[in-house]
Amino acid sequence: MSFSNNLLRCLCIEDCQTGKSTHSGFFSSDLLPSLGANYNRSVALRKYIINPFDRRYRAWEMFLVILVIYSAWISPFDLAFLDKKEGALRIFDNIVNGFFAIDIVLTFFVAYLDSQTYALVDDHKKIAVRYMSTWFILDVSSTVPFRSIILLCTHRKSEIGYKILGMLRLWRLRRVSSLFARLEKDIRFNYFWIRCTKLVWVTLFAVHCAGCFNYLIADRYPDPNKTWIGAVYPNFKSESMWVRYVTSLYWSIVTLTTTGYGDLHAENTREMVFAICYMLFNLGLTAYLIGNMTNLVVHWTGNTRDFRDKVTAASEFAKRNHLPAQIREQILSHICLDYKTRGLKQQDTLNCLPKAIRASISRHLFYPVVQNVHLFCGISHECLFQLVSEMEAEYFPPKEVVILQNEIPTNLYILVTGAVIIGKVVSGEMFGESGVLYNTPQSFTFQTSEISQMLRLDGSALLRTIHTNTQDGFIIMSNFYKVLFFPCMNY
Amino acid sequence: MSFSNNLLRCLCIEDCQTGKSTHSGFFSSDLLPSLGANYNRSVALRKYIINPFDRRYRAWEMFLVILVIYSAWISPFDLAFLDKKEGALRIFDNIVNGFFAIDIVLTFFVAYLDSQTYALVDDHKKIAVRYMSTWFILDVSSTVPFRSIILLCTHRKSEIGYKILGMLRLWRLRRVSSLFARLEKDIRFNYFWIRCTKLVWVTLFAVHCAGCFNYLIADRYPDPNKTWIGAVYPNFKSESMWVRYVTSLYWSIVTLTTTGYGDLHAENTREMVFAICYMLFNLGLTAYLIGNMTNLVVHWTGNTRDFRDKVTAASEFAKRNHLPAQIREQILSHICLDYKTRGLKQQDTLNCLPKAIRASISRHLFYPVVQNVHLFCGISHECLFQLVSEMEAEYFPPKEVVILQNEIPTNLYILVTGAVIIGKVVSGEMFGESGVLYNTPQSFTFQTSEISQMLRLDGSALLRTIHTNTQDGFIIMSNFYKVLFFPCMNY
Amino acid sequence: MSFSNNLLRCLCIEDCQTGKSTHSGFFSSDLLPSLGANYNRSVALRKYIINPFDRRYRAWEMFLVILVIYSAWISPFDLAFLDKKEGALRIFDNIVNGFFAIDIVLTFFVAYLDSQTYALVDDHKKIAVRYMSTWFILDVSSTVPFRSIILLCTHRKSEIGYKILGMLRLWRLRRVSSLFARLEKDIRFNYFWIRCTKLVWVTLFAVHCAGCFNYLIADRYPDPNKTWIGAVYPNFKSESMWVRYVTSLYWSIVTLTTTGYGDLHAENTREMVFAICYMLFNLGLTAYLIGNMTNLVVHWTGNTRDFRDKVTAASEFAKRNHLPAQIREQILSHICLDYKTRGLKQQDTLNCLPKAIRASISRHLFYPVVQNVHLFCGISHECLFQLVSEMEAEYFPPKEVVILQNEIPTNLYILVTGAVIIGKVVSGEMFGESGVLYNTPQSFTFQTSEISQMLRLDGSALLRTIHTNTQDGFIIMSNFYKVLFFPCMNY
Amino acid sequence: MSFSNNLLRCLCIEDCQTGKSTHSGFFSSDLLPSLGANYNRSVALRKYIINPFDRRYRAWEMFLVILVIYSAWISPFDLAFLDKKEGALRIFDNIVNGFFAIDIVLTFFVAYLDSQTYALVDDHKKIAVRYMSTWFILDVSSTVPFRSIILLCTHRKSEIGYKILGMLRLWRLRRVSSLFARLEKDIRFNYFWIRCTKLVWVTLFAVHCAGCFNYLIADRYPDPNKTWIGAVYPNFKSESMWVRYVTSLYWSIVTLTTTGYGDLHAENTREMVFAICYMLFNLGLTAYLIGNMTNLVVHWTGNTRDFRDKVTAASEFAKRNHLPAQIREQILSHICLDYKTRGLKQQDTLNCLPKAIRASISRHLFYPVVQNVHLFCGISHECLFQLVSEMEAEYFPPKEVVILQNEIPTNLYILVTGAVIIGKVVSGEMFGESGVLYNTPQSFTFQTSEISQMLRLDGSALLRTIHTNTQDGFIIMSNFYKVLFFPCMNY
Repeated sequence: MSFSNNLLRCLCIEDCQTGKSTHSGFFSSDLLPSLGANYNRSVALRKYIINPFDRRYRAWEMFLVILVIYSAWISPFDLAFLDKKEGALRIFDNIVNGFFAIDIVLTFFVAYLDSQTYALVDDHKKIAVRYMSTWFILDVSSTVPFRSIILLCTHRKSEIGYKILGMLRLWRLRRVSSLFARLEKDIRFNYFWIRCTKLVWVTLFAVHCAGCFNYLIADRYPDPNKTWIGAVYPNFKSESMWVRYVTSLYWSIVTLTTTGYGDLHAENTREMVFAICYMLFNLGLTAYLIGNMTNLVVHWTGNTRDFRDKVTAASEFAKRNHLPAQIREQILSHICLDYKTRGLKQQDTLNCLPKAIRASISRHLFYPVVQNVHLFCGISHECLFQLVSEMEAEYFPPKEVVILQNEIPTNLYILVTGAVIIGKVVSGEMFGESGVLYNTPQSFTFQTSEISQMLRLDGSALLRTIHTNTQDGFIIMSNFYKVLFFPCMNY
Repeated sequence: MSFSNNLLRCLCIEDCQTGKSTHSGFFSSDLLPSLGANYNRSVALRKYIINPFDRRYRAWEMFLVILVIYSAWISPFDLAFLDKKEGALRIFDNIVNGFFAIDIVLTFFVAYLDSQTYALVDDHKKIAVRYMSTWFILDVSSTVPFRSIILLCTHRKSEIGYKILGMLRLWRLRRVSSLFARLEKDIRFNYFWIRCTKLVWVTLFAVHCAGCFNYLIADRYPDPNKTWIGAVYPNFKSESMWVRYVTSLYWSIVTLTTTGYGDLHAENTREMVFAICYMLFNLGLTAYLIGNMTNLVVHWTGNTRDFRDKVTAASEFAKRNHLPAQIREQILSHICLDYKTRGLKQQDTLNCLPKAIRASISRHLFYPVVQNVHLFCGISHECLFQLVSEMEAEYFPPKEVVILQNEIPTNLYILVTGAVIIGKVVSGEMFGESGVLYNTPQSFTFQTSEISQMLRLDGSALLRTIHTNTQDGFIIMSNFYKVLFFPCMNY
Repeated sequence: MSFSNNLLRCLCIEDCQTGKSTHSGFFSSDLLPSLGANYNRSVALRKYIINPFDRRYRAWEMFLVILVIYSAWISPFDLAFLDKKEGALRIFDNIVNGFFAIDIVLTFFVAYLDSQTYALVDDHKKIAVRYMSTWFILDVSSTVPFRSIILLCTHRKSEIGYKILGMLRLWRLRRVSSLFARLEKDIRFNYFWIRCTKLVWVTLFAVHCAGCFNYLIADRYPDPNKTWIGAVYPNFKSESMWVRYVTSLYWSIVTLTTTGYGDLHAENTREMVFAICYMLFNLGLTAYLIGNMTNLVVHWTGNTRDFRDKVTAASEFAKRNHLPAQIREQILSHICLDYKTRGLKQQDTLNCLPKAIRASISRHLFYPVVQNVHLFCGISHECLFQLVSEMEAEYFPPKEVVILQNEIPTNLYILVTGAVIIGKVVSGEMFGESGVLYNTPQSFTFQTSEISQMLRLDGSALLRTIHTNTQDGFIIMSNFYKVLFFPCMNY
Repeated sequence: MSFSNNLLRCLCIEDCQTGKSTHSGFFSSDLLPSLGANYNRSVALRKYIINPFDRRYRAWEMFLVILVIYSAWISPFDLAFLDKKEGALRIFDNIVNGFFAIDIVLTFFVAYLDSQTYALVDDHKKIAVRYMSTWFILDVSSTVPFRSIILLCTHRKSEIGYKILGMLRLWRLRRVSSLFARLEKDIRFNYFWIRCTKLVWVTLFAVHCAGCFNYLIADRYPDPNKTWIGAVYPNFKSESMWVRYVTSLYWSIVTLTTTGYGDLHAENTREMVFAICYMLFNLGLTAYLIGNMTNLVVHWTGNTRDFRDKVTAASEFAKRNHLPAQIREQILSHICLDYKTRGLKQQDTLNCLPKAIRASISRHLFYPVVQNVHLFCGISHECLFQLVSEMEAEYFPPKEVVILQNEIPTNLYILVTGAVIIGKVVSGEMFGESGVLYNTPQSFTFQTSEISQMLRLDGSALLRTIHTNTQDGFIIMSNFYKVLFFPCMNY
């Protein structure tokens, strides 16, 4: 149980296996071979190679994601608002960089999943080639502390240049992006909230970055009065950092939401160029937000809308064809009950499952009911199991006709709960069997008197079972005749 | 009938049962047991426990919703614009609070529906635990009149603090939200209008709240000229309440719709922070509104669009393959008629209904026609009922060929209205029977001369009926031969 | 032909019948009876009752729509910008009103279509009751020239009041709305352009109205300098009408698109209230526009997107499972050809048509090819017709295998165009017949050498035909053995 | 192979054939004949007629597209910002015009594809008539260098008029539009990026044009201080071209994104009219962008969303019906594995392929596995091929029951990879055969112990094969009895 539990988790969230249970058999089961026989069978990892699905490696990755978020938020802020004196921050920054340097080294020892074959590659050379040819350069350049290096060699000049090099750290954001991609598929979390969190995060980050960059442009502009902030606060450089940051954020979000009050606006060409780029980006971001929201709204309202459509169609049909009120009500209550029991039955989902699982479910749910039905008294367990796996649960609203008079029914019904009048069937009893086994029209209508749950058994399935299991078939038929000719004896 | 009517209503709108008819059987029928046999059968409610579906409790809830809407609108307004002197309002406020206090007590005596099993829980302890652990604290803190209590003990100071505590009353809005969720599923109301009302309500409430809060911020700011309203109306505090309220609403809606004229805009950091939060909220709200509208538009236009697609596809097909004009017209008129009769037939909806209901509908609609058909003269009612339930109505446009010459038809048709030329069939007569019963190709083409409604009967269903009901089958066959060999005698 | 042509038009655009062909039979064919037998058969119209589908009545309605559009545009403009002196306009206005007065009288003589039963009601009393209880009061009050009447009685005062009463004429816009609803279903016009025209019309009309009303508010405000236009043009009342109208439109559209420059903005409470209402309306309108556009974009790109998805899925499958390049190419060219021939085959559309129409199409397209196939030499026309109606056209890209070696084919193929190598089949010849008739595995692979069009005939359909038509079946079998044993003789 | 490769490319991107391989047979294969026999067979091109799919003609078209993009960007810029003196640009412009003049002549010699019949028309007269009646006049008038011609005749006056005539060159943009339409269907490029590029291109071009035209209006206005740019930069005509262009772009994009700061806004009627038109256009463009983005988002998230829905539905079902944890886990791991193997199986795509291709794929993938199964030892290749093409690959998660005890299985399974416990099946072995061949219930449950890939063979397909191939059927049965009675001998 605990193994399968683990496996389940690993399949869905790709996050798996404590140290103790990483036996080599696991990999052959986790990684999907391609169809057919000629796939690579050697998936046991070599020595000194880390499995990317190892729990400890996952924890390390999660730790790095936190550092990434920290540095993504602090980098633009640092660039725009902070002066060189904050020593503590500088040291902390270098520690963070250190962790990323360790990760670069580590990456050379982590196997990777080939995206085409789903196979885990653990060849040192292949890992190195793949890493060097893809992300290595960007990873390194986002980690090297250019400023510290250059400060050692030369005396400071053009601080701003080094700071912009520091922007390379935003490259690390790809880790956050891949985290969200994984979380969206993680069945432990709610899909909707993950997606919303992602959208909110992206929006806030865009606002933060744009605010910081726009302030930076104003800060470096030669004439402070010809800047977007200077036109409003002539001595903005002496304002507190809080005021300057909030003003930047305010401009940024006024632009992002396309509110555009105009109290703060570009005053020089440099700011205009930045604003043009930002607004183009916003156009895409807004469309993306709306697209996602539409997607979610369509998805949410789907069930209710379909139900309402059905009700409307049925009412219209009844009105147009002057159906009597009784039939109209039967139709509507059937549709309503169908909608209500949707969550209980989940037919679509069950139909995708393999037969064996569906059989287990049926046995768990229906066996206790079916074994007490008089028709099946004394038949073998095997035969009963087979019959149970053919059964399907159905709900009927009150006053609904289950079998019509004079109809030759093709299904048997076992009443689980509720009541059926006229035929006076009580819970746990069966009806419709004489039609199926004896091929005679039903002599009276079976109609529910309250909400009833029934098990439906296809007549042909019963006949097939009787034919293949001769002995059990004989018992069933003798049970049937006993009830038919001596009904009083049995009840 | 009246019972089923009630049941219907209770199923769909979860609002049901006058006091006199709440017999214990009802609950077992309303609440859905889980699949299978092992569900909790004791759903009769204990003493002093109120059924949440009781009509009187529903009325009480509806009354509370009205109070909620009142207090939701008045609370922010009170906070921002009203001074302490309005005694009448204060008293009314306390009466409203009284009602909510009663409701808190009442909730301890109301059974609840377990969301997992759909079972009604009436255990005093469970009800109390559930309420205490979820909404109790918020309900109480939104009801306690902090101000009145504290005024009794101490002398007034920091009025504003108590007012903000009063904002806790917005918590009560969850009742409005759950009302809308219920109304959306209520088949008595139009889905579209409920959804629109909800969206408009949310939008207006957001505008109202934001306007009030923004005014509050300006009102409390130390320097009145450095506020969004003070920059335009220097003596805004002496303006009438109407002017101040309209100006606040105007700012609020200019921001919500992202129009952002800029005549009123944030002047200090405090206002900027509020505007940032409001604009972020607006981004989400706007996306939500657009998503809902897209959803509704896609849904509305679906039918017309599908019809237009079919027509376009058919025209293109005819043009590309140089079909003669006559066939082209037959295709187009068939598609058009299909679209027009969509509302009359509602095939998709009917197919979801159980066989017994469909049989009732067929009997009601088609029995009067079918009983006069010569082929079925003299056969038993039971047999005729069975045949009728197999029939389906179809519409044919004029000039459409129903059965081709030399084709061995597999269906019989009974002409209900309209006319069929060549075969000279009149309303209420049948054709195609010789093909089905005698297996001979049709000797002439049956073509409609005007719009015709026909009942189609699958040939194999007729043959099956003949085989199972030997006597009726004999009558049908003798009717058939009578017409075949002595047609003049019969007409 | 011309009759069916008319009928077709009348079904689709509900616009039909010249005077000469309005025989009573038409109505019974146009109006759909409800399902079953008990519908109202008396649909021949009474005397002095106009048929709403009469061509002349339609022309009258179209003429009124043009007048409606004229008065919808001129009314708000008149209200805001025009003074009382324009005598010519006044007279023209009264003429227009006269036409609408005639229409009110006329409506009492026009039969109407019952929305529930689709039946045409021609009872004078019912028509009158229906009209009086729905639109009569609004129609009358939008037609009465209040101003002229009152001018006759009293001396002028409060001109503006009468003007606002004139706004009731906007009620007539319902005619435009119903015109668009009809055009959208009219197969003679392009659905997309009708929908776009409607959206553009609604947008422009909203802009025009809002501009006019906003100017009206400014014009009537006591202090001209405290108005939105007066704050910018202090002497705006002396500006030319063109300048004032363009400025109004400019404000209106700046607000509608939520651009909100802020150069023109509300200056007093009255204007703020109007702006609040207009912006709320805009929120809805914008969402509606975006929803419609999304709907159209999703619809347009559907085909291309599905095709691209299929190609991507196939490529991925081939790569993941290391399929050889040859198979990969076969898969891709099949998918591409399928996409290209989509327009030629239109399978989905054809499948909805009744069997008889599909048979006509098959005969028209395939009979000339099939009658020359050696296997069917000498068989009766009836039998050949039946076989042709079972056939389906298929396209095969070059190098695609049609029948594999050692496969027992279940279909016959007739090559229409293109070439098949190895089996060396030429156009107009058939292959696969020995597998179907003789049940032997194919001794060599049939592979296309160029793009080929083939007719596929299901083997079981052929066998069924042979069994039912004994004589033709004998000819087919003898043809088959002739080819099999003396192939040289036949070619 | 190389031929089919070419064909493939030509089908998908309509870009095909090097000079050497343009044999006449190609056209009959590329162009789709209409269904049926009576299509035009003469598609070999006449002399001096260029094939539009010729690779060299395609290159020429691509070269023209680049020139079009150049002239589309430079024309509005030239109109607004450039004075007459730039001689080099003028000359380059005339060279570009020369190329388009050549293209006009060339078009008379290029065959065209009839949009109705997909046939290539090469009749000189038809080509000329078609071109003259559609695009000829616009093409010529967009190429004639009006200015140069008139400069030769008269002395310069009203330069602006000729410049606006030059705007006719924007007509050439239709080439870019058709290029994008083709690229969207080109399987070599990513659909998403092509679509995004197109949207970005359209947006940027709209911004550029609007900016230039708006500057032009300000530049020509008599009073420079009453223009949108003059109100901010009083001496804007003496500013550098860069400042003026960036300011124009800035205004344009502020308006397009509906940000509308208001720092630059229309000052006179002429500008207002232009702004009204531009904003109306923007409304449409924004809706189009959002519509496209929604379309893409819905498409992207489809798979993940469906998977999450299934998981949620299954969890809910398990909880509501109190299923034991073991069954719940089986259900969830099955759904997860199904989602993961989606990319490997691509069932939907494969099902659309014709039988012959699917058989080839099955043979390639499964033959090596199946030939070693003991049941099929010694049977003929033909028979084995047939069996293999009936097989389907399936994945099973660990602990999933494949065949239940006492069930009479209808499928056989061959284990490709993974392991099955209890039955102790190893890779390459089969199970379930005794149920299929001997019709006995399975005596023990087959359950996977790790992720397993199996080939499923429908029992009835096996039985059919045995019956038709008597000899192979005998071998299979003897293999089966050998294992059944002497299992030890075989393993």
